[in-house]
Amino acid sequence: MKFAKRADKIDSSFVREILKLASNSDIISFAGGLPNPNLFPSQAFRKASEDILSNPKMAQIALQYGESAGFYALREEIAKTYKQKDNLDIDPDLIIITTGSQQALDLIAKIFINKNDTVLLESPTYLAAIQTFQFYEPKFDTISLTETGPNINELEPKSGKLFYTIPNFQNPSGVTWNTNTRKFVADWAYKKNVIIIEDDPYGEIRFSGKRQPTLKSFNDDVILLGSFSKILAPGLRLGWIIAPNKDWFDKLILAKQASDLHSSQFTQLITWKFYKDFDSQKHIKELSNFYSKQKELLIKEIEAHIPEISLNNPEGGMFLWGELPIGYDSVELLKIAIEQRVAFVPGIPFYINDIKDNTMRLNFSNSSLQDIKDGVKRLKRSVDIYKGQNSL
Amino acid sequence: MKFAKRADKIDSSFVREILKLASNSDIISFAGGLPNPNLFPSQAFRKASEDILSNPKMAQIALQYGESAGFYALREEIAKTYKQKDNLDIDPDLIIITTGSQQALDLIAKIFINKNDTVLLESPTYLAAIQTFQFYEPKFDTISLTETGPNINELEPKSGKLFYTIPNFQNPSGVTWNTNTRKFVADWAYKKNVIIIEDDPYGEIRFSGKRQPTLKSFNDDVILLGSFSKILAPGLRLGWIIAPNKDWFDKLILAKQASDLHSSQFTQLITWKFYKDFDSQKHIKELSNFYSKQKELLIKEIEAHIPEISLNNPEGGMFLWGELPIGYDSVELLKIAIEQRVAFVPGIPFYINDIKDNTMRLNFSNSSLQDIKDGVKRLKRSVDIYKGQNSL
Repeated sequence: MKFAKRADKIDSSFVREILKLASNSDIISFAGGLPNPNLFPSQAFRKASEDILSNPKMAQIALQYGESAGFYALREEIAKTYKQKDNLDIDPDLIIITTGSQQALDLIAKIFINKNDTVLLESPTYLAAIQTFQFYEPKFDTISLTETGPNINELEPKSGKLFYTIPNFQNPSGVTWNTNTRKFVADWAYKKNVIIIEDDPYGEIRFSGKRQPTLKSFNDDVILLGSFSKILAPGLRLGWIIAPNKDWFDKLILAKQASDLHSSQFTQLITWKFYKDFDSQKHIKELSNFYSKQKELLIKEIEAHIPEISLNNPEGGMFLWGELPIGYDSVELLKIAIEQRVAFVPGIPFYINDIKDNTMRLNFSNSSLQDIKDGVKRLKRSVDIYKGQNSL
Repeated sequence: MKFAKRADKIDSSFVREILKLASNSDIISFAGGLPNPNLFPSQAFRKASEDILSNPKMAQIALQYGESAGFYALREEIAKTYKQKDNLDIDPDLIIITTGSQQALDLIAKIFINKNDTVLLESPTYLAAIQTFQFYEPKFDTISLTETGPNINELEPKSGKLFYTIPNFQNPSGVTWNTNTRKFVADWAYKKNVIIIEDDPYGEIRFSGKRQPTLKSFNDDVILLGSFSKILAPGLRLGWIIAPNKDWFDKLILAKQASDLHSSQFTQLITWKFYKDFDSQKHIKELSNFYSKQKELLIKEIEAHIPEISLNNPEGGMFLWGELPIGYDSVELLKIAIEQRVAFVPGIPFYINDIKDNTMRLNFSNSSLQDIKDGVKRLKRSVDIYKGQNSL
């Protein structure tokens, strides 16, 4: 066999195969993790792009090779935003622009994970993170997620090299950690010498409630990640890493250089120009208001029509987490749902162990209000058919 | 120590440190590997970008998540170009768009290199490739490069997992393999079960002579790489892999998903629109004509003023390779050159072993004709000072 051992073990994800079916245009999909394309600030980008490409000097910067750490003025905008939102002092010299925050996971794995190192995960967790880490052949250990964050009693005795977390509006569960859990985990990590990856692509998409402090604010060694994919547009492929110190920054830069030299300079300049010339906070607020309405409607419709699904009610993000009664199999339900032209993601792929096969992830950001109503009708029919088939 | 073993061994490259010095604006630099920013088709990109972002449907595609393999219409344009230039039938379904061809090297390494696998390299070779491979901890073995390609007699008894090659206008040496060497190496690889990486970022930048057939045309299992960085603009961060078969394609896609999900959808659409609406071949011809003049002048000036440097004369690309008399140390010369406000890259970092420390790489694409004249004057002064200091 030609493939390296690390690659040989990895196969295409089950969910991706389902998503292929769900991309059929007559299916109403609560399955994807897509932001709503109607809310992309495309006219602002149009103006930004025109401004850059009509200015010969800016155009040359946008189109030439750039720094591996990214366009400095964009890194300054990122630092500024943390100051405004979290009163967090971030040194732009420790920020690395990545090709989406997916790449951040790969770079961190590349410089930290030895074969058989333990990577701790929330259970459930973001499945593409699992896939990224798998290439570096770690062992995984999991901590159950509760409504307020990872179960502290379960976590306390554990140890590992890295703990991968999504403390705000987690994908898939929508869970946000409360402040006490943040403090506890940050202290625990410090004592146990565990590196925390704080992945935060959704934190700015908050509908209600109070913004929680970052884990980084309790523990300087936390590696904080962010992304423009959900708040602006994923097609830019831009995220960032905040390295805790120069030593880690330097290693991450070596990994970045080896991986793709640097991220698209062109989309970096457009994003910088957007932050400079437009009201990014207003945009994020509008987007949050819209997503909030979508979430409210999806909850309302499901509660009214499908009592079998019990939902949580996240204060932001893009996902709801649903639980069917014990004994229900959400993969079997999905097969019926696809026939009924509606899709969601069963919980299974988000678990490494202790799989709860009665769970499901429901995305609300990428469906119109009408589609949410119609989609829930179809989902209700699917549940009824499932119950009939299984004599429930 | 926290870092993974693979990362612990890797340090910042010596050349990057020098390039930092050379980025000072009063230094005339033959050191970089930058395309000439005055030749970026920025007005065509401006039109393409405006066309895309003013069309709501196109804008949504450009800004949303996309396929991991890349935007299909762009992959079709790439396939079409191979048909036109090389009469090569490439299946767009086997093309993967990468975040520059640097990422292609990383993805290939990720799926093929086990620790201690042998990677064969031309000597000298592209130093960022060495750095990318190093993260996967292979053993390296090298084959000396002659004027017509790798030394066949040296190659014949060797074996390995991968052979990394740049058969056209190689970075750093400018060498282009002749047809016989291509045939020989392609057959040898087939017999020895060695995977050839045919990295071809410069092949289209030909000033004179006849385009050589691809290695892939002699051996179907060759992995052929291309890039828009040198023919259009590196700031787009777009290159591609042509996978030899579906099996390898599928594994590369898994690695791509794990690495950054997909490359910038926005710059992919702009590039596709450029190929569709503009005469890309005319652009490449103009660029080649300009680079050709720069090369001719650099050769003429050095031959006229610095007889100590003997140069080759590549028929394309961006680099000349210079040799100083045996006993000269090009790193020492560089230190003087920097003081004289001129820079080049000493040969050392391009070698793994059998280092020729009297060699140098000279880039001609990124200097104006006036800068080439002035730069050679400064380089001559540097050589004179070096000779004086070393009593040569």
